[in-house]
Amino acid sequence: MKHFPLERAFTFFESGPVLMVSTSDGKKNNIMTMSWHMLLDFTPIIGCSIGPWDYSYKALKKTGECVLAVPGADIMKTAVDIGNISGEDIDKFEKFSLTPKKGEKVGAPIIEECLFNLECKVIEEHTFKNDINMFVLEGVSAHQNTTRKERRAFHAKGDGTFFVEGKHIDLRSRMTRWQEVI
Amino acid sequence: MKHFPLERAFTFFESGPVLMVSTSDGKKNNIMTMSWHMLLDFTPIIGCSIGPWDYSYKALKKTGECVLAVPGADIMKTAVDIGNISGEDIDKFEKFSLTPKKGEKVGAPIIEECLFNLECKVIEEHTFKNDINMFVLEGVSAHQNTTRKERRAFHAKGDGTFFVEGKHIDLRSRMTRWQEVI
Repeated sequence: MKHFPLERAFTFFESGPVLMVSTSDGKKNNIMTMSWHMLLDFTPIIGCSIGPWDYSYKALKKTGECVLAVPGADIMKTAVDIGNISGEDIDKFEKFSLTPKKGEKVGAPIIEECLFNLECKVIEEHTFKNDINMFVLEGVSAHQNTTRKERRAFHAKGDGTFFVEGKHIDLRSRMTRWQEVI
Repeated sequence: MKHFPLERAFTFFESGPVLMVSTSDGKKNNIMTMSWHMLLDFTPIIGCSIGPWDYSYKALKKTGECVLAVPGADIMKTAVDIGNISGEDIDKFEKFSLTPKKGEKVGAPIIEECLFNLECKVIEEHTFKNDINMFVLEGVSAHQNTTRKERRAFHAKGDGTFFVEGKHIDLRSRMTRWQEVI
């Protein structure tokens, strides 16, 4: 797991991959799977929909800390299974043979098997349309796992089907207005 | 362009593709390219970051209406070029040979060349961290273009590189907690 420049972490999130969110309430670690997130600033600031209906909500609310991890396509089934079971009664790291590693700046664990981990602190919480909950997270430390053979993230269609990152195309020469992000 | 069930429109957005946003201020149509968006509810409700720094902001603020269109990989370069020029001095539909079609429920035009169009109304506007602007949009009518040869959407890494949807994997049998979205 190598340190990664925080100001380039947005390149792992802008495309909207399926994420794992790790939290710790001080006694127990937990993981949830999440597709509902967006970039809000390059620094990076990320918005994500986690609410009282999620078991992770309580730990996130209590500690104000989490890790956003990007799983590769090799652990797609694990990510889906994690999203279909509650952490209330089980330790998901143990059940799914994932390795929690101590973070640098937050208490929530890094997930070693993921391609990328962003340690985050909650900076705001908002409610939309009365009951839609959203956290605004600020990334404070980033780590890349460069040892994984599978380098592709994957994305959810939302209906139980998924797709892997396909062909990459470099259009940096057309980004005339966005020189600072290239 | 065929009507598409509104309650299934989320399947075009959850994966985080590059979108085109069309607006009309009553005098002129405009288009911007956007990657910073997320699903907030299946109905669908979508959050997106459009702010006073975008030329589209004024029309969206004035009318409370827009169309979120999903371009296919065949018009990737057009989408990128649209995101690198302001609509202040030009008509982007004309410049990029795109066809504006009358929407059913909003004044903003549908973009005929896109795979999918969601007519939206602004239901809320929020500000994060003082100056990060976000609109909450509600989809009110959905249209699919089933005539395009290219069926794949594409995604932005944020640094001027992009990727096309790759291999699809059906994991609906594992979605035990989410039967209602399958």
